[in-house]
Amino acid sequence: MRTTTGYRADDTTLRRTTLQRRDLRPDDLAVRVDYCGVCHTDVHSLEDGVVPGHEFTGVVTETGANVTGFAVGDPVAVGNIVDSCGECAMCLAGQENFCHAFPTLTYGGKDRRDGSVTLGGYSREYVVREGFAYHLPAGLDPAAAAPLLCAGVTVWEPLRALGVGPGSRVAVAGLGGLGHLAVKMSVALGATTSVLSRSPGKADDARRLGAVDLLAADDAQRDSFDVVLDTISAPHDLGPYLRLVAMDGTLSQLGYLGPISLETMDLLVGRKKLSSAGSGGRPATAAMLSFCAEHGVAADLELLPSSQVNEAIDRLRRNDVRYRFVLDLSDLD
Amino acid sequence: MRTTTGYRADDTTLRRTTLQRRDLRPDDLAVRVDYCGVCHTDVHSLEDGVVPGHEFTGVVTETGANVTGFAVGDPVAVGNIVDSCGECAMCLAGQENFCHAFPTLTYGGKDRRDGSVTLGGYSREYVVREGFAYHLPAGLDPAAAAPLLCAGVTVWEPLRALGVGPGSRVAVAGLGGLGHLAVKMSVALGATTSVLSRSPGKADDARRLGAVDLLAADDAQRDSFDVVLDTISAPHDLGPYLRLVAMDGTLSQLGYLGPISLETMDLLVGRKKLSSAGSGGRPATAAMLSFCAEHGVAADLELLPSSQVNEAIDRLRRNDVRYRFVLDLSDLD
Repeated sequence: MRTTTGYRADDTTLRRTTLQRRDLRPDDLAVRVDYCGVCHTDVHSLEDGVVPGHEFTGVVTETGANVTGFAVGDPVAVGNIVDSCGECAMCLAGQENFCHAFPTLTYGGKDRRDGSVTLGGYSREYVVREGFAYHLPAGLDPAAAAPLLCAGVTVWEPLRALGVGPGSRVAVAGLGGLGHLAVKMSVALGATTSVLSRSPGKADDARRLGAVDLLAADDAQRDSFDVVLDTISAPHDLGPYLRLVAMDGTLSQLGYLGPISLETMDLLVGRKKLSSAGSGGRPATAAMLSFCAEHGVAADLELLPSSQVNEAIDRLRRNDVRYRFVLDLSDLD
Repeated sequence: MRTTTGYRADDTTLRRTTLQRRDLRPDDLAVRVDYCGVCHTDVHSLEDGVVPGHEFTGVVTETGANVTGFAVGDPVAVGNIVDSCGECAMCLAGQENFCHAFPTLTYGGKDRRDGSVTLGGYSREYVVREGFAYHLPAGLDPAAAAPLLCAGVTVWEPLRALGVGPGSRVAVAGLGGLGHLAVKMSVALGATTSVLSRSPGKADDARRLGAVDLLAADDAQRDSFDVVLDTISAPHDLGPYLRLVAMDGTLSQLGYLGPISLETMDLLVGRKKLSSAGSGGRPATAAMLSFCAEHGVAADLELLPSSQVNEAIDRLRRNDVRYRFVLDLSDLD
């Protein structure tokens, strides 16, 4: 086994500690983790023994014997899944995130070969199958790129699946970690993009991100958006957002909300659709990184030394961040 | 006022009685109602004073002074809406069924000009604005065509909106009034069509209607249909049907179910969509009638003299019909 340093939850407090990583298998990379984003999922997953972190960037430090796609020194990125069955229809379609046998999560997952529980990227080293690592394109700042690997691909997949492009009218509900990336990507795809938020103080930010306006859902015109991306992380009524969707348009709810209820009449009138999205497959993740490099899309972040991880978690609990915390893990050396 | 004969609910029993119709306005037609389908909505709407019936065919017997599209003697059909505001975005888009000011229902609605409550097609005469009457194409049996005006257009709209055609894999859940028309239309549109039903006794019927097979939802392969049309009229769990929808496909729930709850994970895994449909706009209704005439699509029906209307209602309550009751109103003369 290899040893590294990281942050493991002791009850709900993260404490710096020594962690073990597996010795490299033939298809593994060792990654020096430089930057790791702090995701809402990390907050929800904090329980004894967990090492969070599933959107990180770094550099390849060692390669297994059969690795062909990466070399030592390559900039690299890893997202929220690190393995899948590779054989089901979803895996064969490049949607490993929907693997019928369930993908192996980057932390709190179960390694498919030795059964061990995976430990995440709040750590100076990660060992990962090369198939689930991505080349970090030149031109992307490695700190600002880290959140693309979870938040970014989560908004990218529905934008692409729903055909958003020039002429599309898109509204992004909630201007947080997911929302601000949704605005940037939607704008970069050529869509006319609005922000739905109850925080008028974010209007300047919304325009700076490329949105044409920021308004409360109650003030927006019904049936006026082809796509509404709902990035609000707390349980809420979908009705007000469905009302804003245009004829034959879609409300895409992002991130895991659990069971929801809705009034079918809100879907029926205007023949609207509801979808849900989270995470992404390998081809989409790679395509998203290329797109972001080409269009200069990355997260607006507050970079903190990793020693302040508990402060980041506390502030994220209160949604006090613009717009994503990223941990600088170099202080673990 | 004009007088005619029809069936009005006394508590929940329909009794033959004399009814009044308005004198023709300049844009009105008088229609001799020959055949009227019995819809599930009729069962749910039975309360004191109601005259049900919103899918009927007949012949024009008189025209208002400004009527230009119809002449006395024309075969004609009327569906479940008979007016709308004509000015909102939905009306201007030809989706009068989604009129923002709410469409005037064929029965139990409120007339937009005199405020009277509309009385439905379980009656020998109906007076309707010509804009909400449709020419019945030659070649369609007027009795078998009556159910097209509600059940038919309700399944037609989602089939068209979802782009069903050659190469599509469609499943129709529930083989009743809506379901059997959904199968016929889906097959006529060129889709490979299956029926999902817990009644294996309907397998021969399903194949006769053009389906490739009939199977229980639990036995069907997950992620295997581009479109699942859910025509089940009672409240039920949508999860088993969402599981059958292929990647990026849609579960379309037909008819009014009220509030529903679902597990977002059932949508998220496979990036699936949920939609809901009911009724149709004027252009779609006319297009549907043309399509049905061209492809020989109409309802499989049990034709009853209108004097047996209460028997029809009772049997429909028990789903004891293959597949639509149609009342012959000539016994009212």
